[in-house]
Amino acid sequence: MSHKENLTLYVSSFIEQLYQSGVKRAVISPGSRSTPLAYLLENHPQIHTYVNVDERSAAFYALGMAKASQEPVVIVCTSGTAAANYYPAVVEARYARVPLIVLTADRPHELRDNGAPQAIDQINLYGKHAKWFYDMPLPESDTNLLQYTGRIAAKAAAKASAAPKGPVHLNFPFREPLSPDLSFKPDQQPLSAVYLAEKQLNSQYVSDLSAQLNRSEKGLIIAGPSEDQQSAEALIHLAEATGFPVLADPLSGLRTLMTDHPSVIECYDAFLRDNEIKKRLQPDLIIRFGGMPVSKALTQYVKGSECDQWLVDEGADWRDPTSSATHYIEVNDIVFAEQLTKTVDVTSDHSWLDEWIKLNETAAREIQAYIERESDEGAAVGTLLQALPEGAHLLVGNSMPVRDVDTFWVRGMKSFHVWANRGANGIDGVVSTALGIAEVKKEPVYLLIGDLSMFHDLNGLLVTKQYASELQIVVMNNNGGGIFSFLPQATELEHFETLFGTPPSLDFKHAAALYNLDYDRCETKAEFSESLSSGLSRIKMMEVITDREENTASHRRLWTTVAKAVRGE
Amino acid sequence: MSHKENLTLYVSSFIEQLYQSGVKRAVISPGSRSTPLAYLLENHPQIHTYVNVDERSAAFYALGMAKASQEPVVIVCTSGTAAANYYPAVVEARYARVPLIVLTADRPHELRDNGAPQAIDQINLYGKHAKWFYDMPLPESDTNLLQYTGRIAAKAAAKASAAPKGPVHLNFPFREPLSPDLSFKPDQQPLSAVYLAEKQLNSQYVSDLSAQLNRSEKGLIIAGPSEDQQSAEALIHLAEATGFPVLADPLSGLRTLMTDHPSVIECYDAFLRDNEIKKRLQPDLIIRFGGMPVSKALTQYVKGSECDQWLVDEGADWRDPTSSATHYIEVNDIVFAEQLTKTVDVTSDHSWLDEWIKLNETAAREIQAYIERESDEGAAVGTLLQALPEGAHLLVGNSMPVRDVDTFWVRGMKSFHVWANRGANGIDGVVSTALGIAEVKKEPVYLLIGDLSMFHDLNGLLVTKQYASELQIVVMNNNGGGIFSFLPQATELEHFETLFGTPPSLDFKHAAALYNLDYDRCETKAEFSESLSSGLSRIKMMEVITDREENTASHRRLWTTVAKAVRGE
Repeated sequence: MSHKENLTLYVSSFIEQLYQSGVKRAVISPGSRSTPLAYLLENHPQIHTYVNVDERSAAFYALGMAKASQEPVVIVCTSGTAAANYYPAVVEARYARVPLIVLTADRPHELRDNGAPQAIDQINLYGKHAKWFYDMPLPESDTNLLQYTGRIAAKAAAKASAAPKGPVHLNFPFREPLSPDLSFKPDQQPLSAVYLAEKQLNSQYVSDLSAQLNRSEKGLIIAGPSEDQQSAEALIHLAEATGFPVLADPLSGLRTLMTDHPSVIECYDAFLRDNEIKKRLQPDLIIRFGGMPVSKALTQYVKGSECDQWLVDEGADWRDPTSSATHYIEVNDIVFAEQLTKTVDVTSDHSWLDEWIKLNETAAREIQAYIERESDEGAAVGTLLQALPEGAHLLVGNSMPVRDVDTFWVRGMKSFHVWANRGANGIDGVVSTALGIAEVKKEPVYLLIGDLSMFHDLNGLLVTKQYASELQIVVMNNNGGGIFSFLPQATELEHFETLFGTPPSLDFKHAAALYNLDYDRCETKAEFSESLSSGLSRIKMMEVITDREENTASHRRLWTTVAKAVRGE
Repeated sequence: MSHKENLTLYVSSFIEQLYQSGVKRAVISPGSRSTPLAYLLENHPQIHTYVNVDERSAAFYALGMAKASQEPVVIVCTSGTAAANYYPAVVEARYARVPLIVLTADRPHELRDNGAPQAIDQINLYGKHAKWFYDMPLPESDTNLLQYTGRIAAKAAAKASAAPKGPVHLNFPFREPLSPDLSFKPDQQPLSAVYLAEKQLNSQYVSDLSAQLNRSEKGLIIAGPSEDQQSAEALIHLAEATGFPVLADPLSGLRTLMTDHPSVIECYDAFLRDNEIKKRLQPDLIIRFGGMPVSKALTQYVKGSECDQWLVDEGADWRDPTSSATHYIEVNDIVFAEQLTKTVDVTSDHSWLDEWIKLNETAAREIQAYIERESDEGAAVGTLLQALPEGAHLLVGNSMPVRDVDTFWVRGMKSFHVWANRGANGIDGVVSTALGIAEVKKEPVYLLIGDLSMFHDLNGLLVTKQYASELQIVVMNNNGGGIFSFLPQATELEHFETLFGTPPSLDFKHAAALYNLDYDRCETKAEFSESLSSGLSRIKMMEVITDREENTASHRRLWTTVAKAVRGE
């Protein structure tokens, strides 16, 4: 596509999504760099535009419209001090809670911070007075990028409109030439719907959504990681009313309830790797709660599903990195589930659910057999999970431990709680987090952690000298960054160990000695089982010695075995 | 003093210092909260004031004056969006490099961020477009505070005027009632002079300063910590031309040269603790280079000296926490020293210098005797310093190690380089800093570090497995925060160990084993000496076991002994 077509498609898609998100008015102050925004807003058949030369007045004029309509109003200006003239109205809008969408044009990166005329630093120009700032990418017509920037438009309108209402700021870098093609008619991109709710969904939303629920025959609920595991029962009730399977992330709190609730599915990570199975299991509606699931197989399955996808997420973060949601529903999980459970028609057709249950049972049997048979890291994680006492707490490190718990935590084990730091998925501070949980819970707490992550927070062990919490630590020592062995760079052997494997070659026996911990070195599964069953110490470290390469190979064997089993081969 | 007197004294002192720093014009936009600034600017006999109702216009009006005069112009407005209206001119001033001093009035803290009318968040209101932002304290008439805010006024003018010129922003919280007492005539506070230099001091500055140097009979040069130790020789030449002693911080680079240059004084920390000595040694001029010296005794002596004090500091940081400088000279150390050395009359009277040399020699002898006689941490540091080979590098941890090196590094030792992280004086990251120095220097590098600081960066040792640098590590293990034992809280025994002592009770033998380091535990001075003389390993850890309480007591004995010796008792 030509520069002009890219520019036109990008800006007009963005503007169309603004319109779909409730924007009806735009106040434009003349300028050169903002030409694409000005022309294409003017060209939009439904958006009413107004021209106001002084940006300070323009912004207050828009503020008046937004106050009167209670709808977000767009203001557009060129680069430089023009944008600074919006500041008084932006500040007023912030404190008076008036929804404004500020669109400033800017130079592209190569003309920033090098003395180009009228190029000032517009990043976070309004500081804390904008509710949200986003520096837009340069115009491109790649579909993924257009979907993403469409979400940005919808999010800008939603953030401006969510309580407390206020101004948001998007900064658009444009390269010359700046004129769009006004005769170009882009195909409409699929657009998102946004449901903002203060406490409850309003009755119109509820009846729209439950009508769609009743039409759906192959619906799916996905329960992602959640800090507030109180929502587990409400989600299961919704699943049982709709007849939808509910795919339960290990951090959702739902797996703890899987014994009594057959619609909870836990082995999806193993069987959703197979293309044939994925084709058989195409849903017609997905309802997603919580953060992104740990399972990459599930994420790819969701991304590939061409059906409506509802993202229920309180607050305005829209945790949707695959840009696959079609509906953003900003309401509390429990409120949503309870409102919909009450209004939906209870289903009697269970064929879709039964297919999921059958596949899941097959996969679970294969995984249980693997834990008995194998001796790799995965089997060690399974051994740990089988040994956990009723009501125990398990904090899992990021990288491999949380993935292995996702894979090997299957029905038939006791009921326990799993925790992880999935806000930013770091490998840092995990030991200290576990000790913090142990200090509060006063129940058996276990930590499952890789050797790099253990090294990273070794210093966290100092508090074991100060406070009397109890913790059982399982260090999976495969001497380095095991997860990288699963990634494409593992085949670049030359610099792999230096840059990714980073083998620390540590014998944690010495670390245990430094902090006076009980310590067992476990070179076999039998030694590990024995250490686990030998009773709880105050603080015990079990170092499980594993092998990265063997581990990668045996995990791949598991996925093949499961795929064959579920396909009935 | 009454509220009205406090307010009047505080604001009028501030304005007077603005005037002394070159401000001749102020543009005032009417408002209530800014009343004290407006009234007292209007009342100032030399500052010309202009009233301009629209803040946007007012700021551009001031910008025009500042462009034409090339002098900083003050603009004053009230709180709220008034201040936001300055934004376009502030942005223009930033990029056009025009000196503006923006004074905004604000609510006091109790009216911020809780919905008070016209109270917006003015902290960093102009973001990166202000060269400097400072949130002023509430009006008080305490002398220290007035001196400090006077420095802020001078600094604001200097920062606005230093290349590249631009806007600075000071935000003033005021409580009601807001009217100052216009009949009140405050005593003038001592004011600062500021010398801004691009590359060289101009000839007028040089002749003013060298005239004062020639008049001075008891001048003193203080060489503080400096990352750029290239200036050492230039400072010594200035000292030799003027006949001034030069007090050399261990991080100044000057102590390395003390053997050949008798005017370098290194034992000041020991003898400047005595009041009688301090009285005998009252200077009539102090010239300070570099950061604040490590020695607290020296800092207190400087603060108590009622003479002119020149602070030579390239860049605009003005490292002067005691607010005792009377002249801020923004020029490179070497340039300053060389320009003044060339113009000053070489002195023939050495009586003042000889007194310092004699006291220093006496103190040095006592310190050397202490190192031989005692067995505490200080003696161990002295033992290490005596053992360092010619040309070695020593990185010292913060807290006690750097103070002990200050005290025990006296003439008669070999020539070595001392390093420390004195930007923020943290105890963190010290091991890694040492390993970084070792990787670059490829010469013998030693690390002297306390046990808490060693614990804090234990993980830093992992790179010893990756890279082949050599490092000799001396850990002074007194089991906790030894420095706190020197502070007043040490007498509050109840919570002292929990909150300050924080004994980690670590046996570093295990840490050495974890990283495969050579290790010696040294319980006596003899064992430590033997370990030091047994040749360099690649990475060796020497753990020196000391006692916090004994250490505090013996340091105090040293200071008493030195005081007696220098007083001739």
